[in-house]
Amino acid sequence: MIGADVRNLLSANDRIAAANRERFARWGAYVVNLMSAPGAGKTTILERTLTALHGRYRLAVIEGDVRGSYDRDRLRAVADVPVLQINTEVAYGGECHLDALMIANGIADVDLPGTDLIFIENVGNLVCPAEFDVGEDSKVMVASVTEGEDKPLKYPLMYSVCEVLLLNKIDIATAVGFDRATFLINCRSVNPALTVIDVSARTGEGIPTWLNWLTSNIPARS
Amino acid sequence: MIGADVRNLLSANDRIAAANRERFARWGAYVVNLMSAPGAGKTTILERTLTALHGRYRLAVIEGDVRGSYDRDRLRAVADVPVLQINTEVAYGGECHLDALMIANGIADVDLPGTDLIFIENVGNLVCPAEFDVGEDSKVMVASVTEGEDKPLKYPLMYSVCEVLLLNKIDIATAVGFDRATFLINCRSVNPALTVIDVSARTGEGIPTWLNWLTSNIPARS
Repeated sequence: MIGADVRNLLSANDRIAAANRERFARWGAYVVNLMSAPGAGKTTILERTLTALHGRYRLAVIEGDVRGSYDRDRLRAVADVPVLQINTEVAYGGECHLDALMIANGIADVDLPGTDLIFIENVGNLVCPAEFDVGEDSKVMVASVTEGEDKPLKYPLMYSVCEVLLLNKIDIATAVGFDRATFLINCRSVNPALTVIDVSARTGEGIPTWLNWLTSNIPARS
Repeated sequence: MIGADVRNLLSANDRIAAANRERFARWGAYVVNLMSAPGAGKTTILERTLTALHGRYRLAVIEGDVRGSYDRDRLRAVADVPVLQINTEVAYGGECHLDALMIANGIADVDLPGTDLIFIENVGNLVCPAEFDVGEDSKVMVASVTEGEDKPLKYPLMYSVCEVLLLNKIDIATAVGFDRATFLINCRSVNPALTVIDVSARTGEGIPTWLNWLTSNIPARS
Protein backbone atom coordinates (compact mmCIF):
# COMPACT_ATOMS: atom_id res chain seq x y z
CA MET A 1 0.00 0.00 0.00
CA ILE A 2 1.48 3.26 -1.12
CA GLY A 3 0.73 6.71 0.24
CA ALA A 4 -2.07 9.10 -0.63
CA ASP A 5 -3.37 7.18 -3.65
CA VAL A 6 -4.05 4.18 -1.49
CA ARG A 7 -5.65 6.22 1.26
CA ASN A 8 -8.02 7.60 -1.36
CA LEU A 9 -8.63 4.10 -2.65
CA LEU A 10 -9.50 2.84 0.83
CA SER A 11 -11.75 5.83 1.41
CA ALA A 12 -13.57 5.11 -1.86
CA ASN A 13 -13.79 1.46 -0.82
CA ASP A 14 -15.33 2.42 2.51
CA ARG A 15 -18.02 4.48 0.80
CA ILE A 16 -18.95 1.59 -1.47
CA ALA A 17 -18.82 -0.81 1.48
CA ALA A 18 -21.25 1.41 3.39
CA ALA A 19 -23.63 1.33 0.44
CA ASN A 20 -23.34 -2.48 0.27
CA ARG A 21 -24.03 -2.74 4.00
CA GLU A 22 -27.08 -0.51 3.75
CA ARG A 23 -28.38 -2.64 0.90
CA PHE A 24 -27.81 -5.92 2.77
CA ALA A 25 -29.59 -4.51 5.82
CA ARG A 26 -32.54 -3.26 3.79
CA TRP A 27 -33.15 -6.75 2.43
CA GLY A 28 -32.38 -8.52 5.68
CA ALA A 29 -29.43 -10.49 4.33
CA TYR A 30 -26.74 -11.35 6.89
CA VAL A 31 -23.27 -11.37 5.30
CA VAL A 32 -20.18 -13.25 6.47
CA ASN A 33 -16.78 -12.41 4.97
CA LEU A 34 -14.73 -15.60 5.30
CA MET A 35 -10.94 -15.19 5.07
CA SER A 36 -7.84 -17.34 5.53
CA ALA A 37 -4.46 -18.31 4.14
CA PRO A 38 -4.55 -20.59 1.08
CA GLY A 39 -5.53 -24.13 2.00
CA ALA A 40 -6.75 -23.45 5.54
CA GLY A 41 -10.11 -25.01 4.72
CA LYS A 42 -12.63 -22.26 3.93
CA THR A 43 -14.33 -24.22 1.18
CA THR A 44 -14.60 -27.47 3.11
CA ILE A 45 -16.08 -25.60 6.06
CA LEU A 46 -18.53 -23.94 3.69
CA GLU A 47 -19.50 -27.34 2.26
CA ARG A 48 -20.45 -28.49 5.76
CA THR A 49 -22.13 -25.20 6.59
CA LEU A 50 -24.28 -25.11 3.45
CA THR A 51 -25.25 -28.74 3.90
CA ALA A 52 -26.36 -28.10 7.47
CA LEU A 53 -28.22 -24.83 6.89
CA HIS A 54 -29.75 -25.61 3.53
CA GLY A 55 -33.53 -25.57 3.87
CA ARG A 56 -33.43 -23.66 7.17
CA TYR A 57 -32.07 -20.48 5.57
CA ARG A 58 -32.06 -19.07 2.08
CA LEU A 59 -28.36 -19.10 1.29
CA ALA A 60 -26.01 -17.63 -1.29
CA VAL A 61 -22.24 -17.69 -1.76
CA ILE A 62 -19.88 -15.26 -3.45
CA GLU A 63 -16.58 -16.94 -4.35
CA GLY A 64 -13.44 -14.85 -4.76
CA ASP A 65 -10.42 -16.30 -6.54
CA VAL A 66 -7.61 -14.92 -8.63
CA ARG A 67 -8.47 -17.47 -11.33
CA GLY A 68 -10.79 -20.42 -11.81
CA SER A 69 -14.05 -21.59 -10.33
CA TYR A 70 -13.00 -24.81 -8.58
CA ASP A 71 -14.54 -23.83 -5.26
CA ARG A 72 -17.75 -22.64 -6.90
CA ASP A 73 -18.06 -26.00 -8.62
CA ARG A 74 -17.41 -27.82 -5.33
CA LEU A 75 -20.06 -25.79 -3.50
CA ARG A 76 -22.63 -26.11 -6.27
CA ALA A 77 -22.32 -29.87 -5.93
CA VAL A 78 -23.22 -29.70 -2.23
CA ALA A 79 -26.65 -28.17 -2.18
CA ASP A 80 -28.99 -26.17 -4.33
CA VAL A 81 -27.43 -22.86 -3.34
CA PRO A 82 -26.60 -20.03 -5.76
CA VAL A 83 -22.84 -19.59 -5.96
CA LEU A 84 -21.43 -16.60 -7.79
CA GLN A 85 -17.80 -16.47 -8.92
CA ILE A 86 -15.64 -13.34 -8.85
CA ASN A 87 -12.25 -13.73 -10.56
CA THR A 88 -9.88 -10.91 -9.71
CA GLU A 89 -7.52 -11.81 -12.56
CA VAL A 90 -9.80 -11.06 -15.46
CA ALA A 91 -11.82 -8.02 -14.41
CA TYR A 92 -9.69 -6.58 -11.62
CA GLY A 93 -6.03 -6.97 -12.66
CA GLY A 94 -5.17 -9.91 -10.39
CA GLU A 95 -6.02 -8.37 -7.02
CA CYS A 96 -5.05 -10.45 -3.98
CA HIS A 97 -8.30 -9.64 -2.13
CA LEU A 98 -11.95 -8.76 -2.71
CA ASP A 99 -13.00 -5.15 -2.35
CA ALA A 100 -16.35 -3.43 -1.93
CA LEU A 101 -16.73 -2.58 -5.62
CA MET A 102 -16.28 -6.22 -6.65
CA ILE A 103 -18.98 -7.19 -4.16
CA ALA A 104 -21.26 -4.35 -5.33
CA ASN A 105 -20.87 -5.63 -8.89
CA GLY A 106 -21.30 -9.22 -7.78
CA ILE A 107 -24.45 -8.81 -5.70
CA ALA A 108 -26.22 -7.35 -8.69
CA ASP A 109 -26.66 -11.04 -9.59
CA VAL A 110 -27.83 -12.15 -6.14
CA ASP A 111 -31.54 -12.27 -5.27
CA LEU A 112 -31.15 -10.18 -2.12
CA PRO A 113 -34.85 -10.11 -1.13
CA GLY A 114 -34.82 -13.92 -1.33
CA THR A 115 -31.65 -14.46 0.67
CA ASP A 116 -31.09 -14.65 4.45
CA LEU A 117 -27.42 -15.47 4.65
CA ILE A 118 -24.58 -14.74 2.24
CA PHE A 119 -21.08 -16.16 2.58
CA ILE A 120 -18.28 -14.32 0.85
CA GLU A 121 -15.26 -16.59 0.42
CA ASN A 122 -12.37 -14.19 0.03
CA VAL A 123 -9.10 -14.77 -1.83
CA GLY A 124 -6.74 -16.95 0.24
CA ASN A 125 -4.43 -14.34 1.78
CA LEU A 126 -3.78 -13.18 5.35
CA VAL A 127 -2.76 -9.61 4.46
CA CYS A 128 -4.87 -7.42 2.15
CA PRO A 129 -8.34 -8.99 2.57
CA ALA A 130 -8.18 -7.69 6.16
CA GLU A 131 -7.81 -4.12 4.88
CA PHE A 132 -10.90 -4.03 2.69
CA ASP A 133 -14.35 -3.69 4.22
CA VAL A 134 -16.83 -5.14 1.74
CA GLY A 135 -19.99 -4.28 3.71
CA GLU A 136 -20.20 -7.59 5.59
CA ASP A 137 -21.85 -8.05 8.99
CA SER A 138 -19.12 -10.35 10.30
CA LYS A 139 -15.54 -11.04 9.45
CA VAL A 140 -14.66 -14.65 10.18
CA MET A 141 -11.28 -16.24 9.62
CA VAL A 142 -10.12 -19.82 9.31
CA ALA A 143 -6.67 -20.76 10.59
CA SER A 144 -5.24 -24.24 10.24
CA VAL A 145 -3.19 -25.86 13.00
CA THR A 146 -0.64 -26.65 10.29
CA GLU A 147 0.20 -22.95 9.92
CA GLY A 148 1.89 -22.73 13.30
CA GLU A 149 1.41 -20.75 16.48
CA ASP A 150 3.13 -17.53 15.39
CA LYS A 151 0.72 -16.36 12.71
CA PRO A 152 -1.37 -13.96 14.86
CA LEU A 153 1.85 -12.03 15.52
CA LYS A 154 2.89 -11.99 11.87
CA TYR A 155 -0.53 -11.10 10.40
CA PRO A 156 -1.94 -9.01 13.23
CA LEU A 157 -4.44 -7.01 11.20
CA MET A 158 -6.27 -10.12 9.99
CA TYR A 159 -6.41 -11.56 13.49
CA SER A 160 -7.56 -8.26 14.97
CA VAL A 161 -10.36 -7.42 12.52
CA CYS A 162 -12.12 -10.79 12.80
CA GLU A 163 -14.64 -11.59 15.50
CA VAL A 164 -14.54 -15.36 15.07
CA LEU A 165 -11.64 -17.67 14.30
CA LEU A 166 -12.34 -21.22 13.20
CA LEU A 167 -9.27 -23.21 14.22
CA ASN A 168 -9.39 -25.91 11.59
CA LYS A 169 -7.76 -29.35 11.18
CA ILE A 170 -7.88 -29.69 14.96
CA ASP A 171 -7.96 -33.48 14.39
CA ILE A 172 -4.29 -33.40 13.35
CA ALA A 173 -3.12 -30.84 15.94
CA THR A 174 -1.18 -33.44 17.91
CA ALA A 175 0.30 -35.02 14.80
CA VAL A 176 1.74 -31.70 13.63
CA GLY A 177 2.89 -30.65 17.11
CA PHE A 178 0.55 -27.64 17.31
CA ASP A 179 0.82 -25.74 20.60
CA ARG A 180 -2.73 -24.50 21.08
CA ALA A 181 -2.05 -22.65 24.34
CA THR A 182 0.69 -20.53 22.75
CA PHE A 183 -1.49 -19.90 19.70
CA LEU A 184 -4.31 -18.63 21.93
CA ILE A 185 -1.94 -16.35 23.85
CA ASN A 186 -0.77 -14.93 20.51
CA CYS A 187 -4.38 -14.49 19.36
CA ARG A 188 -5.36 -12.69 22.55
CA SER A 189 -2.35 -10.39 22.33
CA VAL A 190 -3.68 -8.89 19.09
CA ASN A 191 -7.42 -9.43 19.67
CA PRO A 192 -8.58 -10.06 23.25
CA ALA A 193 -12.22 -10.37 22.12
CA LEU A 194 -11.63 -13.03 19.45
CA THR A 195 -13.98 -16.03 19.67
CA VAL A 196 -12.00 -19.19 18.84
CA ILE A 197 -13.88 -22.31 17.80
CA ASP A 198 -11.92 -25.55 17.27
CA VAL A 199 -13.21 -27.40 14.24
CA SER A 200 -12.30 -30.15 11.85
CA ALA A 201 -13.92 -29.70 8.47
CA ARG A 202 -12.86 -33.27 7.70
CA THR A 203 -14.38 -35.03 10.73
CA GLY A 204 -17.12 -32.49 11.48
CA GLU A 205 -15.85 -31.89 15.02
CA GLY A 206 -16.80 -28.44 16.28
CA ILE A 207 -18.99 -27.60 13.29
CA PRO A 208 -22.19 -27.57 15.46
CA THR A 209 -20.56 -24.92 17.69
CA TRP A 210 -19.80 -22.83 14.60
CA LEU A 211 -23.36 -23.26 13.30
CA ASN A 212 -24.69 -22.27 16.69
CA TRP A 213 -22.64 -19.06 16.68
CA LEU A 214 -23.76 -18.33 13.17
CA THR A 215 -27.46 -18.94 13.57
CA SER A 216 -27.63 -17.04 16.83
CA ASN A 217 -26.27 -14.00 14.98
CA ILE A 218 -28.66 -14.13 12.04
CA PRO A 219 -31.66 -11.90 12.63
CA ALA A 220 -34.99 -13.70 12.77
CA ARG A 221 -36.87 -13.60 9.50
CA SER A 222 -39.52 -10.89 9.49
CA MET B 1 -3.62 -4.19 -9.10
CA ILE B 2 -5.31 -1.32 -10.86
CA GLY B 3 -4.64 0.07 -14.31
CA ALA B 4 -1.96 2.44 -15.54
CA ASP B 5 -0.66 3.46 -12.11
CA VAL B 6 0.17 -0.12 -11.32
CA ARG B 7 1.75 -0.75 -14.71
CA ASN B 8 4.04 2.21 -14.03
CA LEU B 9 4.75 0.88 -10.56
CA LEU B 10 5.72 -2.53 -11.95
CA SER B 11 7.88 -0.89 -14.60
CA ALA B 12 9.65 1.16 -11.91
CA ASN B 13 10.02 -2.04 -9.88
CA ASP B 14 11.59 -3.82 -12.84
CA ARG B 15 14.18 -1.07 -13.30
CA ILE B 16 15.17 -1.28 -9.64
CA ALA B 17 15.19 -5.09 -9.82
CA ALA B 18 17.57 -4.94 -12.79
CA ALA B 19 19.90 -2.69 -10.80
CA ASN B 20 19.75 -5.11 -7.83
CA ARG B 21 20.51 -8.02 -10.15
CA GLU B 22 23.47 -6.26 -11.69
CA ARG B 23 24.81 -5.49 -8.23
CA PHE B 24 24.39 -9.09 -7.01
CA ALA B 25 26.18 -10.35 -10.14
CA ARG B 26 29.02 -7.89 -9.77
CA TRP B 27 29.76 -9.20 -6.27
CA GLY B 28 29.12 -12.83 -7.09
CA ALA B 29 26.21 -13.23 -4.67
CA TYR B 30 23.59 -15.81 -5.69
CA VAL B 31 20.12 -14.78 -4.56
CA VAL B 32 17.12 -17.02 -3.88
CA ASN B 33 13.65 -15.48 -3.46
CA LEU B 34 11.73 -17.93 -1.26
CA MET B 35 7.94 -17.64 -1.36
CA SER B 36 4.92 -19.52 -0.02
CA ALA B 37 1.55 -19.25 1.69
CA PRO B 38 1.67 -18.50 5.43
CA GLY B 39 2.82 -21.50 7.44
CA ALA B 40 4.08 -23.64 4.55
CA GLY B 41 7.48 -23.94 6.20
CA LYS B 42 9.88 -21.42 4.63
CA THR B 43 11.60 -20.60 7.91
CA THR B 44 12.04 -24.20 9.04
CA ILE B 45 13.50 -25.09 5.65
CA LEU B 46 15.84 -22.12 5.96
CA GLU B 47 16.90 -23.29 9.42
CA ARG B 48 17.96 -26.63 7.94
CA THR B 49 19.53 -24.98 4.90
CA LEU B 50 21.62 -22.50 6.89
CA THR B 51 22.74 -25.21 9.29
CA ALA B 52 23.88 -27.41 6.40
CA LEU B 53 25.61 -24.73 4.33
CA HIS B 54 27.11 -22.66 7.13
CA GLY B 55 30.90 -22.76 6.79
CA ARG B 56 30.77 -23.95 3.16
CA TYR B 57 29.29 -20.70 1.89
CA ARG B 58 29.15 -17.15 3.17
CA LEU B 59 25.44 -16.73 3.78
CA ALA B 60 22.97 -13.93 4.45
CA VAL B 61 19.19 -13.78 4.87
CA ILE B 62 16.71 -10.98 4.23
CA GLU B 63 13.46 -11.57 6.13
CA GLY B 64 10.24 -9.99 4.90
CA ASP B 65 7.26 -9.75 7.22
CA VAL B 66 4.35 -7.39 7.64
CA ARG B 67 5.27 -7.02 11.32
CA GLY B 68 7.68 -8.54 13.78
CA SER B 69 11.04 -10.29 13.63
CA TYR B 70 10.15 -13.77 14.88
CA ASP B 71 11.70 -15.54 11.90
CA ARG B 72 14.81 -13.40 12.05
CA ASP B 73 15.23 -14.34 15.70
CA ARG B 74 14.72 -18.04 14.87
CA LEU B 75 17.32 -17.94 12.10
CA ARG B 76 19.84 -15.98 14.14
CA ALA B 77 19.69 -18.75 16.73
CA VAL B 78 20.64 -21.36 14.13
CA ALA B 79 24.03 -20.25 12.90
CA ASP B 80 26.24 -17.23 12.79
CA VAL B 81 24.57 -15.81 9.68
CA PRO B 82 23.58 -12.18 9.21
CA VAL B 83 19.79 -11.88 9.09
CA LEU B 84 18.24 -8.58 8.08
CA GLN B 85 14.58 -7.79 8.80
CA ILE B 86 12.29 -5.85 6.46
CA ASN B 87 8.91 -4.97 7.95
CA THR B 88 6.45 -3.82 5.34
CA GLU B 89 4.08 -2.38 7.94
CA VAL B 90 6.28 0.37 9.27
CA ALA B 91 8.20 1.69 6.28
CA TYR B 92 6.06 0.50 3.38
CA GLY B 93 2.41 0.86 4.42
CA GLY B 94 1.71 -2.83 5.11
CA GLU B 95 2.55 -4.29 1.70
CA CYS B 96 1.70 -7.97 1.23
CA HIS B 97 4.95 -8.67 -0.65
CA LEU B 98 8.54 -7.52 -0.98
CA ASP B 99 9.46 -5.34 -3.93
CA ALA B 100 12.75 -4.38 -5.55
CA LEU B 101 13.03 -1.05 -3.73
CA MET B 102 12.71 -2.72 -0.31
CA ILE B 103 15.49 -5.12 -1.30
CA ALA B 104 17.63 -2.27 -2.68
CA ASN B 105 17.23 -0.49 0.65
CA GLY B 106 17.83 -3.70 2.59
CA ILE B 107 21.01 -4.82 0.84
CA ALA B 108 22.68 -1.56 1.71
CA ASP B 109 23.23 -3.31 5.05
CA VAL B 110 24.51 -6.60 3.56
CA ASP B 111 28.23 -7.18 3.01
CA LEU B 112 27.83 -8.15 -0.63
CA PRO B 113 31.52 -8.70 -1.41
CA GLY B 114 31.66 -11.07 1.55
CA THR B 115 28.52 -13.07 0.68
CA ASP B 116 28.04 -16.02 -1.69
CA LEU B 117 24.40 -16.85 -1.15
CA ILE B 118 21.49 -14.68 -0.03
CA PHE B 119 18.06 -16.03 0.87
CA ILE B 120 15.14 -13.62 0.68
CA GLU B 121 12.21 -14.94 2.72
CA ASN B 122 9.23 -13.15 1.22
CA VAL B 123 5.94 -12.29 2.96
CA GLY B 124 3.70 -15.37 3.23
CA ASN B 125 1.32 -14.85 0.30
CA LEU B 126 0.68 -16.77 -2.93
CA VAL B 127 -0.49 -13.77 -4.97
CA CYS B 128 1.50 -10.51 -5.09
CA PRO B 129 5.04 -11.74 -4.27
CA ALA B 130 4.91 -13.57 -7.62
CA GLU B 131 4.36 -10.25 -9.42
CA PHE B 132 7.41 -8.43 -8.08
CA ASP B 133 10.88 -9.22 -9.42
CA VAL B 134 13.37 -8.23 -6.73
CA GLY B 135 16.52 -9.00 -8.72
CA GLU B 136 16.90 -12.60 -7.52
CA ASP B 137 18.63 -15.37 -9.48
CA SER B 138 16.01 -17.99 -8.60
CA LYS B 139 12.43 -17.95 -7.45
CA VAL B 140 11.71 -20.95 -5.23
CA MET B 141 8.38 -21.71 -3.60
CA VAL B 142 7.35 -23.90 -0.71
CA ALA B 143 3.97 -25.62 -0.81
CA SER B 144 2.66 -27.72 2.05
CA VAL B 145 0.75 -30.95 1.46
CA THR B 146 -1.83 -29.56 3.90
CA GLU B 147 -2.81 -26.84 1.39
CA GLY B 148 -4.48 -29.29 -0.99
CA GLU B 149 -3.99 -30.32 -4.61
CA ASP B 150 -5.85 -27.43 -6.25
CA LYS B 151 -3.54 -24.55 -5.37
CA PRO B 152 -1.52 -24.49 -8.64
CA LEU B 153 -4.79 -23.82 -10.47
CA LYS B 154 -5.89 -21.10 -8.04
CA TYR B 155 -2.55 -19.29 -7.76
CA PRO B 156 -1.17 -19.96 -11.26
CA LEU B 157 1.22 -17.00 -11.44
CA MET B 158 3.15 -18.10 -8.34
CA TYR B 159 3.40 -21.68 -9.58
CA SER B 160 4.46 -20.53 -13.06
CA VAL B 161 7.19 -18.03 -12.11
CA CYS B 162 9.08 -20.42 -9.81
CA GLU B 163 11.67 -22.87 -11.07
CA VAL B 164 11.70 -25.06 -7.96
CA LEU B 165 8.90 -26.14 -5.67
CA LEU B 166 9.71 -27.64 -2.30
CA LEU B 167 6.74 -29.85 -1.44
CA ASN B 168 6.93 -29.69 2.33
CA LYS B 169 5.41 -31.73 5.18
CA ILE B 170 5.62 -34.78 2.92
CA ASP B 171 5.83 -36.87 6.12
CA ILE B 172 2.15 -36.19 6.82
CA ALA B 173 0.93 -36.45 3.21
CA THR B 174 -0.88 -39.72 3.87
CA ALA B 175 -2.35 -38.51 7.15
CA VAL B 176 -3.94 -35.49 5.47
CA GLY B 177 -5.06 -37.44 2.39
CA PHE B 178 -2.86 -35.49 -0.01
CA ASP B 179 -3.14 -36.68 -3.63
CA ARG B 180 0.38 -36.08 -4.93
CA ALA B 181 -0.32 -37.30 -8.48
CA THR B 182 -3.16 -34.81 -8.94
CA PHE B 183 -1.08 -32.04 -7.43
CA LEU B 184 1.74 -32.73 -9.91
CA ILE B 185 -0.68 -32.75 -12.84
CA ASN B 186 -1.97 -29.37 -11.67
CA CYS B 187 1.60 -28.06 -11.29
CA ARG B 188 2.56 -29.21 -14.78
CA SER B 189 -0.55 -27.63 -16.28
CA VAL B 190 0.66 -24.17 -15.27
CA ASN B 191 4.44 -24.81 -15.33
CA PRO B 192 5.69 -27.85 -17.26
CA ALA B 193 9.32 -27.08 -16.33
CA LEU B 194 8.79 -26.88 -12.56
CA THR B 195 11.25 -28.95 -10.51
CA VAL B 196 9.39 -30.51 -7.57
CA ILE B 197 11.39 -31.75 -4.58
CA ASP B 198 9.54 -33.58 -1.80
CA VAL B 199 10.83 -32.49 1.60
CA SER B 200 10.00 -32.58 5.26
CA ALA B 201 11.54 -29.71 7.14
CA ARG B 202 10.60 -31.55 10.32
CA THR B 203 12.26 -34.92 9.60
CA GLY B 204 14.89 -33.69 7.15
CA GLU B 205 13.65 -35.97 4.37
CA GLY B 206 14.51 -34.57 0.94
CA ILE B 207 16.61 -31.70 2.28
CA PRO B 208 19.82 -33.16 0.76
CA THR B 209 18.15 -33.12 -2.68
CA TRP B 210 17.25 -29.47 -2.18
CA LEU B 211 20.79 -28.64 -1.04
CA ASN B 212 22.15 -30.46 -4.06
CA TRP B 213 19.98 -28.40 -6.40
CA LEU B 214 21.00 -25.23 -4.63
CA THR B 215 24.74 -25.80 -4.50
CA SER B 216 24.90 -26.97 -8.10
CA ASN B 217 23.38 -23.62 -9.10
CA ILE B 218 25.71 -21.42 -7.09
CA PRO B 219 28.64 -20.25 -9.19
CA ALA B 220 32.07 -21.42 -7.98
CA ARG B 221 33.90 -18.86 -5.90
CA SER B 222 36.43 -16.95 -7.97
